[in-house]
Amino acid sequence: MSRFADAEFHARVARLQAGMGAAGLDALLLTTAPDVFYVTGFLTRFWESPARPWFVVVPAKGAPVAVIPSIGAELMGKTWLRDIRCWAAPDLADDGVTLLADTLCDMVPETGRIGVPMGHETQLRMPLADYERLRAATAPRRVADARDVLHRVREVKSEPEIERIRQTCAVADRAFDRVPAIAREGVPLDAVFRRFQIALLQEGADWVPYLAGGAGPGGYGDVISPADDRPLQAGDLLMLDTGAVKAGYFCDFDRNWAIGHADDASRRAYDTLFAATEAGLAAARPGATAADLFRAMRDVIGQTGEAGRLGHGLGLSLTEWPSLIAADRTAMRPGMVMTLEPGIEIAPGRIMVHEENIVIREDGAELLSRRAPVELPVIG
Amino acid sequence: MSRFADAEFHARVARLQAGMGAAGLDALLLTTAPDVFYVTGFLTRFWESPARPWFVVVPAKGAPVAVIPSIGAELMGKTWLRDIRCWAAPDLADDGVTLLADTLCDMVPETGRIGVPMGHETQLRMPLADYERLRAATAPRRVADARDVLHRVREVKSEPEIERIRQTCAVADRAFDRVPAIAREGVPLDAVFRRFQIALLQEGADWVPYLAGGAGPGGYGDVISPADDRPLQAGDLLMLDTGAVKAGYFCDFDRNWAIGHADDASRRAYDTLFAATEAGLAAARPGATAADLFRAMRDVIGQTGEAGRLGHGLGLSLTEWPSLIAADRTAMRPGMVMTLEPGIEIAPGRIMVHEENIVIREDGAELLSRRAPVELPVIG
Repeated sequence: MSRFADAEFHARVARLQAGMGAAGLDALLLTTAPDVFYVTGFLTRFWESPARPWFVVVPAKGAPVAVIPSIGAELMGKTWLRDIRCWAAPDLADDGVTLLADTLCDMVPETGRIGVPMGHETQLRMPLADYERLRAATAPRRVADARDVLHRVREVKSEPEIERIRQTCAVADRAFDRVPAIAREGVPLDAVFRRFQIALLQEGADWVPYLAGGAGPGGYGDVISPADDRPLQAGDLLMLDTGAVKAGYFCDFDRNWAIGHADDASRRAYDTLFAATEAGLAAARPGATAADLFRAMRDVIGQTGEAGRLGHGLGLSLTEWPSLIAADRTAMRPGMVMTLEPGIEIAPGRIMVHEENIVIREDGAELLSRRAPVELPVIG
Repeated sequence: MSRFADAEFHARVARLQAGMGAAGLDALLLTTAPDVFYVTGFLTRFWESPARPWFVVVPAKGAPVAVIPSIGAELMGKTWLRDIRCWAAPDLADDGVTLLADTLCDMVPETGRIGVPMGHETQLRMPLADYERLRAATAPRRVADARDVLHRVREVKSEPEIERIRQTCAVADRAFDRVPAIAREGVPLDAVFRRFQIALLQEGADWVPYLAGGAGPGGYGDVISPADDRPLQAGDLLMLDTGAVKAGYFCDFDRNWAIGHADDASRRAYDTLFAATEAGLAAARPGATAADLFRAMRDVIGQTGEAGRLGHGLGLSLTEWPSLIAADRTAMRPGMVMTLEPGIEIAPGRIMVHEENIVIREDGAELLSRRAPVELPVIG
């Protein structure tokens, strides 16, 4: 995997710093895997270990500073960052707090403000007690919510980012093509899950952090359960929804199949979801709000629609903001990568969902996933 | 995958409640995937989406209460929990905070204390701004660090938990057996990573959240980097380190191979690490501290040892506490599942690591991973 050019990171940090300036923030403290990857290119599965915190500080001017466990020094040294400060983690007495506080105090005047993402769809990936210690050690500097600064920048993807997401979507497209050879009557759903993960890896995924799905007669029960060992049966609707990763970027879309044969209710539900997605595609233009996209799809689905959001942002995480819900007024801008994800209840406890990935362009939506078949495919 | 018996969860919650009583906590608020899985059995890859927070509250007496997005109601309904309170997330105005605050206020007297894990190796998986709102909405109730209560309970595994970890280790054992067919001179490291993930899935892993490794002449540079596309060469040392998951439980161990031939320095390093692990195995008895295990291995490695910890807890996460470092005085107790993970610097910038998984028994360490070969294997 080739790394991004330094110019890509310079542009990202410049955009963040413009937002920080407008919001009156003298530094931005980042603690999560996608945020740190976004400004540095530091990519590792080691985040899977909760033992160690990792920090990157974006100053008002100049390049970010990494404050990290020494086990990451070699890998961080391969990024564009030059100021990398390490401690021997885990340190039960002071797990990087003093080093981070000193870094922030050098960078932020006593009357200044440290931006920390605090709002919706953010997390602070460090122990809460250490955060309180950091607050005390950096006083009288104040903290302020940097959620909007961060999200308005990250949600608009650059062309190199869009290309990576397109490549990941193409991996999933090819793996979905192989499902007729993977799933047929009699194969347990957990075996389908394993075989589909294998197909994703064979088609070029680096990792498969997310796979959900369901199977049941005329619909499935939910979309977040792990697979059970029930064999697929004729008349089942099967759905697979994957968040594979290539070069650090996710896809997130699903496909549906009927096993053996499809009943009329399933075909009608599929047609409705296909039409709802068409309406979402047509509505996905610069200036339209997340709520506009929601309503466009909801109007097609009607009152049988599943509650909840009908899509979301996508990129460095499986799901990003904004949410396609009635309350989200975030405006679409060129470069935003979104999922369109309408759902429908076919019968009580039996649902169907449909999902595509798109990027917003000046003249409307461009598909990143290959469009699902017009009619519900019957396999196996 | 069969779920745990209800009695298993009753026992876990009883142990937590005993600890809460001793610590003066009237409720315990849990927000992370492993903590929620531990008390409920709620298992889903949907945690990969940062959009929605999930809460479980353990009261001083009685069963836990789930406060969760409605998208999880069906799956949570399959667990032993009966009190499941849902909201239509994402709600940009009130994302479960009022529902959670009401739950806590009913459960905890005004003079009472709410336990929240805050210390080392904990995270709060909810937006910081929502946590501040929760604090205000539950005042005058105080919060207190519940890290020790939680960790002293979770770190001692039950026999059903140990059996699951043993099964996951067996998956990795079988996959490691297949490495000679996967890795040979000329195969790029990223292809080795993909093939090894496929082998893990074929051998029964549900997921492969973690795979690290390295390859280089006479040693590798670090142990957390993603794979690059450099082909393996004769004289390389190859290491693969996996955290696969089966039925919710991780393994975490590695293996080393020499490609084509091994030089004397590599063989000596391997012998030293094997002997260090033997010393760790001998020291791993009830009553010994994490520091004792660290020193036992460190004494064999000597001053050429890698800085950092030489092992850690294991189970619902890739890494758990305690840490095998000089400062960690946590005593080993029967049922604790640990990794022994000594490392050595063969030459500047070229290291070797070695790792096994064990459970502490009354009479000493029992291996959960199959012991690595006595001599560095040469393949390819």
